[in-house]
Amino acid sequence: MPVPDKSAYEKLKDRYERIINLNNAGAILHKDAEIFMPKGSADDRTRQLMALADTTHGLITDPQVEKWLDEAESDTARLSATDRRNLTLMRRNWVSEAGLPDDLAQEMTRLSSEGERRHTELRKTGDWSKMRDWYAHSYDVIRKAGIIKKEKLGLPSVYEALLDNYSPDLSDATVEREFGALEKVLPDLIREAVERQQKGPQPLPLKGPFPQAQQAILCRRLTEAMGYDFDKGRMDAIDAHPSSGGSASDVRFTTDCSNEETFLPAVYSTVHECGHALYEQATPEDKRYQPVGGSMGMSIHESQSGIMERNAAHTPEFFQFLEKLVREIFKRPDDPALSAQNLALLANRVHPSFIRIEADELTYPAHIILRYKMEKSLIEGMLMIDDLPQAWNDGIQKLLGITPPDNAKGCMQDVHWPIGAIGYFPAYALGNMIAAQLYYAAVKTEPTIPTELAKGNFKPLREWLRENVHSKGSLLTTDELLTAATGEKLNSKYYLDHLSRRYLGRPV
Amino acid sequence: MPVPDKSAYEKLKDRYERIINLNNAGAILHKDAEIFMPKGSADDRTRQLMALADTTHGLITDPQVEKWLDEAESDTARLSATDRRNLTLMRRNWVSEAGLPDDLAQEMTRLSSEGERRHTELRKTGDWSKMRDWYAHSYDVIRKAGIIKKEKLGLPSVYEALLDNYSPDLSDATVEREFGALEKVLPDLIREAVERQQKGPQPLPLKGPFPQAQQAILCRRLTEAMGYDFDKGRMDAIDAHPSSGGSASDVRFTTDCSNEETFLPAVYSTVHECGHALYEQATPEDKRYQPVGGSMGMSIHESQSGIMERNAAHTPEFFQFLEKLVREIFKRPDDPALSAQNLALLANRVHPSFIRIEADELTYPAHIILRYKMEKSLIEGMLMIDDLPQAWNDGIQKLLGITPPDNAKGCMQDVHWPIGAIGYFPAYALGNMIAAQLYYAAVKTEPTIPTELAKGNFKPLREWLRENVHSKGSLLTTDELLTAATGEKLNSKYYLDHLSRRYLGRPV
Repeated sequence: MPVPDKSAYEKLKDRYERIINLNNAGAILHKDAEIFMPKGSADDRTRQLMALADTTHGLITDPQVEKWLDEAESDTARLSATDRRNLTLMRRNWVSEAGLPDDLAQEMTRLSSEGERRHTELRKTGDWSKMRDWYAHSYDVIRKAGIIKKEKLGLPSVYEALLDNYSPDLSDATVEREFGALEKVLPDLIREAVERQQKGPQPLPLKGPFPQAQQAILCRRLTEAMGYDFDKGRMDAIDAHPSSGGSASDVRFTTDCSNEETFLPAVYSTVHECGHALYEQATPEDKRYQPVGGSMGMSIHESQSGIMERNAAHTPEFFQFLEKLVREIFKRPDDPALSAQNLALLANRVHPSFIRIEADELTYPAHIILRYKMEKSLIEGMLMIDDLPQAWNDGIQKLLGITPPDNAKGCMQDVHWPIGAIGYFPAYALGNMIAAQLYYAAVKTEPTIPTELAKGNFKPLREWLRENVHSKGSLLTTDELLTAATGEKLNSKYYLDHLSRRYLGRPV
Repeated sequence: MPVPDKSAYEKLKDRYERIINLNNAGAILHKDAEIFMPKGSADDRTRQLMALADTTHGLITDPQVEKWLDEAESDTARLSATDRRNLTLMRRNWVSEAGLPDDLAQEMTRLSSEGERRHTELRKTGDWSKMRDWYAHSYDVIRKAGIIKKEKLGLPSVYEALLDNYSPDLSDATVEREFGALEKVLPDLIREAVERQQKGPQPLPLKGPFPQAQQAILCRRLTEAMGYDFDKGRMDAIDAHPSSGGSASDVRFTTDCSNEETFLPAVYSTVHECGHALYEQATPEDKRYQPVGGSMGMSIHESQSGIMERNAAHTPEFFQFLEKLVREIFKRPDDPALSAQNLALLANRVHPSFIRIEADELTYPAHIILRYKMEKSLIEGMLMIDDLPQAWNDGIQKLLGITPPDNAKGCMQDVHWPIGAIGYFPAYALGNMIAAQLYYAAVKTEPTIPTELAKGNFKPLREWLRENVHSKGSLLTTDELLTAATGEKLNSKYYLDHLSRRYLGRPV
């Protein structure tokens, strides 16, 4: 009996399995470059990663793939819902990878490396006259790519096409509505929280040294408590910005224990990255080598790091667990600065400041709302690039009541725009918003979640997230996922309520 | 002015650069799997490596490559000597990768994984009845591949086609002649050396523990002395068989310090692997991404590890350096077992035994000669697979005067044959032979080489090897390389002379 030819969809599955395996190889090499690679082989490693990227690009732009996509899409009746979703994700990926003319795709690649170089060189000078043209160029290039994607996918706006690169399946109408609700309340909330903290008890400062080796033990204990599987990944302490990556079966993340004056940055970078890693480790194993089995975009990913870092690991109950851990590991049974109450005062401090990546939980979304408004206006031509620095300063003044002394602390601080990552920023605040909504629903179903954290038991929270988020991979859209898990679509009220309770001691 | 089309040769260069970059990516991932990878992601890693191997295989078997090869070979007049050599190496690689029918290539891949599994499972039982069919199958498959290669490259015999996979450019006539010369003298030499050592001074045993952490420091000091560039590679101590790999700009090797009763295995595995690594690190940088810029086959590679381990690091001068190091690192200024004289007695002990990988320097080549004769006879049909165990036992009795109690200590001990690596073994002894010939020439040119070793100064030896071997990459054939470096082709007399001087205290 002759074996029937593979269907177009099956051929696409084979192709994507190959692509995902090669992408995983690249992801491991990328982490290796951060952690283990000797410095002198950076150029060699770049060549390897470029060869991999060129190879996967070639596997997608191969004209056969478009034919298979057309053929598979013309007859989806026999496909399961999962396969149809997988096919949708393949097409979206194809549009991003193969939909652009070669010269535009190359210019985007150049943006990313050359933009990073220029940003690193000029950021600290704050010299806008030297960066202005590059920002303008970056916006022009990305706008062109956005127009093509908008048309190919039939999206309502160019900005939504860009947003979709990082937060797929989220409409800009939703983002505008929820960020708008947040913006209305946030400035007053911040002002009130700052006043309240000024009048309340002041935290005792931590007194170092907290030796790196002991901080590493602390990080290990935290990740064990969180349920990270060390058989399918590694954690390494390095003196650099923490991050996570690798493949779903080998999720590697870094933490930074190099500051011996305090252990709080190590604690929170560990909990944050471990949140990302737990998500990757629990994506559905049987779909692991297909687009549908992977984690969703950045919004959901940031919700999974955020829910661990912010919603779980800043609760009074977690601070009880943390107190026990640090007293034992640093051998300081009587240090008053290590009490749960004092750790909470230290970790929940609100202080409006200029730099996004140093911002506290409450002021952080203000930084994002500002960037969202700026980048959208720039893409839509409602704001001219020459007016960016002033518009930025006006915006941050309105939101946080402070004005940057220079562009280094203003519109030139982030790497995103010079490398063409326009549409990325919203994911950070959307992640926090989603986290609050998920945490509310989780605690409603499992009321023991907070109390178990006091014992260092993350299991109830982790299990709920596995069932409702991690195990879904990319099967659902963001709205579908939130509706299934929480009973409603994205709604900022849970986030506002969370912030108000934590910083003002009362619901909105 | 229009840009002229790239020539066929330039297209081949682009293709091979891509292939080498992907191979390098795979080599780093392979080392990572040994050293850093969490155990639970072994299956995931296999998928990545398979995807890479399939990709590079596809890049070679692409019908365009054969056209380019034909076209480039039809007009080599404008190519430099280096480019012509590069083209020769490309063709040879193409024959190995693309010259076999798909089903045969797949069966060879299966041999390598399934053969390793069966060997690991059955080796220790010594149950030949369970392995016999697999060995027969392996020889059948590899013989078929050898016949095709022999015809495509116009080689004189099937065995030479197999030999060429591991020791390129060495004729079997040469191997037979030089191994023959060795075989004639070796049994008597071994017998005499054993008697001489029995009558001479007996070594004091080392008294552990020699802590792992201090052994690691010792290994680091040795590699620093040898001139290994830690900016372009790493050394890691792991509890497993030492090996080296990675890319030329990121040469990684492992050593094993887990036996705290003695530091000698750690010393010699480090010096051996570092010898391999020094070779890779000094291949010509401007040709690094072409076949001609890579290291040569296994014979030359083994000569570079061997010359460091055997010729340099077993001399009386090296033992003076080692004594100084170990007394300092293990803090044993007065331990009589650590004297240079005693270390030499320990490290140069001759003892005929059954297992190749545990053999001393003098008996080692006997193990190889035996395997060479067996595998060649099996390939040529002069020995039947059923007669292998008896022929093995007869052979080892003749060479070493001992008879294995079972096949676990006899013909079933090595992984090479069950995985289809037939033609590999000679490289080990050829490497030792080449090392002796090179060392003789090096010392003749640089008489300070041995005396500088007493100070831990490897520079004169290393520089000579860089100039005469490492920097040549694959530019020369083995005979050309040896003639340029030593004034003559491969000649076993230097090896015999070295063995005779070291173990009998006089020239042959």
